[in-house]
Amino acid sequence: MDRRKLVGGAALVAGTAALAGCGEGSNSAGEGPAAPAVARKKRTLKMVTTWPKGLPGLGAAAERVAKRVSDMTDGTLTIKVYAAGEIVPAFESFDAVSGGTADMYHGAEYYWQGKSKGFNFFTAVPFGLTANENNAWFYHGGGLPLWEELSAKFNIRAMPAGNTGVQSGGWFRKEINTLDDLKSLKIRMPGLGGEVMRRLGAAAEALPGPEIYPALQQNRIEAAEWVGPWNDQALGFHQVADPIYYYVPGFHEPGATLALGVNLDVWQSLSDSERAIIQNACMAEDSYDLAEFNHHNASALDNLVTQHGVQLRRFSDEIIAEMKRVSEDVIKEAAQEDELTGRIYESFLAARKNGMAWGVGSDEAYMNARRTAFKPLEQ
Amino acid sequence: MDRRKLVGGAALVAGTAALAGCGEGSNSAGEGPAAPAVARKKRTLKMVTTWPKGLPGLGAAAERVAKRVSDMTDGTLTIKVYAAGEIVPAFESFDAVSGGTADMYHGAEYYWQGKSKGFNFFTAVPFGLTANENNAWFYHGGGLPLWEELSAKFNIRAMPAGNTGVQSGGWFRKEINTLDDLKSLKIRMPGLGGEVMRRLGAAAEALPGPEIYPALQQNRIEAAEWVGPWNDQALGFHQVADPIYYYVPGFHEPGATLALGVNLDVWQSLSDSERAIIQNACMAEDSYDLAEFNHHNASALDNLVTQHGVQLRRFSDEIIAEMKRVSEDVIKEAAQEDELTGRIYESFLAARKNGMAWGVGSDEAYMNARRTAFKPLEQ
Repeated sequence: MDRRKLVGGAALVAGTAALAGCGEGSNSAGEGPAAPAVARKKRTLKMVTTWPKGLPGLGAAAERVAKRVSDMTDGTLTIKVYAAGEIVPAFESFDAVSGGTADMYHGAEYYWQGKSKGFNFFTAVPFGLTANENNAWFYHGGGLPLWEELSAKFNIRAMPAGNTGVQSGGWFRKEINTLDDLKSLKIRMPGLGGEVMRRLGAAAEALPGPEIYPALQQNRIEAAEWVGPWNDQALGFHQVADPIYYYVPGFHEPGATLALGVNLDVWQSLSDSERAIIQNACMAEDSYDLAEFNHHNASALDNLVTQHGVQLRRFSDEIIAEMKRVSEDVIKEAAQEDELTGRIYESFLAARKNGMAWGVGSDEAYMNARRTAFKPLEQ
Repeated sequence: MDRRKLVGGAALVAGTAALAGCGEGSNSAGEGPAAPAVARKKRTLKMVTTWPKGLPGLGAAAERVAKRVSDMTDGTLTIKVYAAGEIVPAFESFDAVSGGTADMYHGAEYYWQGKSKGFNFFTAVPFGLTANENNAWFYHGGGLPLWEELSAKFNIRAMPAGNTGVQSGGWFRKEINTLDDLKSLKIRMPGLGGEVMRRLGAAAEALPGPEIYPALQQNRIEAAEWVGPWNDQALGFHQVADPIYYYVPGFHEPGATLALGVNLDVWQSLSDSERAIIQNACMAEDSYDLAEFNHHNASALDNLVTQHGVQLRRFSDEIIAEMKRVSEDVIKEAAQEDELTGRIYESFLAARKNGMAWGVGSDEAYMNARRTAFKPLEQ
């Protein structure tokens, strides 16, 4: 338990008092007189994360949120980012922020499903929402208010702050041609996706990231999912066997949202403009991060296939249909945990229905039409 | 020519001088001493737009960018938004900002294709990039630096600030079953999409938004595209004929990026933190706006079909393939206008290739797999 109290409550309050007056009385429009001169006292907030230092797309997103805030405040509000284990272990980030040991976390909400199964819906659930559908739900379909209601129960204000896009189905030492091939398969897959795999007969477990490679290499597990081509290539999973099969896309995390969670007392101690700055920083990073994943995944996948001989596969329609059938059971059961999770589930279902209804005219339809049109050129 | 000089250059410079000192010397990390007290003089920037006042998703995006900036600066930097025609007509926004009559515009870059065909690529081109692919290109594939290079030639700094998502193919008084049905068809479609239609034999013209409805109703045109279900329904196009056919998706604007363009002298007069605030505001709005379009398009489309009897159609594979073949010619020719547009085109092609390569594991593949899995339930 590497958990130290590093943030002094007194320093926090002192910083807050000085900040609260900054910019006050300057809300009217037009070229008014100069606002009263105020001292801008510096304040530094401590962010714990669930990521190893500098982890591309994930730890990097946390660092960029911090930089955006610093840039927008001329450094009067800065965020010091701690990698997993520096103040608390990754999965204790939530308690650290809830209790005030740290001011905020950057991570993924489904890590807190032990607190409430409802958190799963704010990262990703099997056969759930794409990144774009998540944002439609959060901002316009009632998702964010429900998320805030759930987080507030734990003295936290949470918001989207990154997205991996569609994750991959994972690395397999053997081909998965039928549902029988999943029976007794030792696979690394955490969360609700792992539960789906278990119900399909696999032996799914939730190994931490750094333990996946040796477990795969030593054949203690036969398959593992991590993120997508960009991150997977960095961890070297393609080297554990020859041949090695890579299944895309995954069914379990179709647009994993990353989150910033701020201690609610800290959140309320911030000025209106500081809160707006943090919210806009997170929304901007959400967009930038997804773009980064999408950009790098393409070249990483190409490299894996053409340079490393990785065998690219997709799950058959039969397997996908069964994964989907079981997934519906798993998330429905998760939703029965409590009243709020039930409401989150109903709202999620409406958002998915909405997203799929617009599929006939949205990216889904366009990308299919474009694919059809390009086929003769094989571009 | 309704063009008035409303912004006093002197007031602008005076405001700038006071702002430049704010927050200086406060870049070091940690809980430092209070920064020197500085006066935060208010400054108001004038934003012209290419949108009618309050136009959902478009004019609203401009208003929200302004609000984000005001919220983040406690009102010390505000943006007053002018609808099309209030200071200058919509399509003169670019010249107004380039020349300093206004400080910034919110619009769509392809409106300036008369200045350079290169601008088309930063809104949307036929069979081009989705919203997500646009962002991958802008932020990670070299798109934004090229955009900035092009805009700088006109004394402007431009950036993404909204997105409509995939637009619809439009409203047709008759079904389009074969390429022959496009011959001599009088259709409202501006830009490169319109040029594609012309080469397919149609009589395409670029009517301004408000003129579309009467032209359709009086049968002066037989077809028209505008944006997508949400905006199209608001303009009442479904009422012009019975039956009326609505084609989704469109091929011509698969993810139209909206843009903020700031006069370069004004941009350089802003402090680092103000520039960061404007950039983050635009990125946040980009994400929020796309989510809004996606959310509302679903229910609008459902309403059009179930309440108004609109006949939903898609172009046949044969028509799509021919549209694509002609589109490739049209954008290639556009790219030959000058050296910079040629480089923009090459960079765009690489981004499209990248996006389509990742299609095997990204939203495209996932949404298809999900669609397949859902079919038995017809959800």
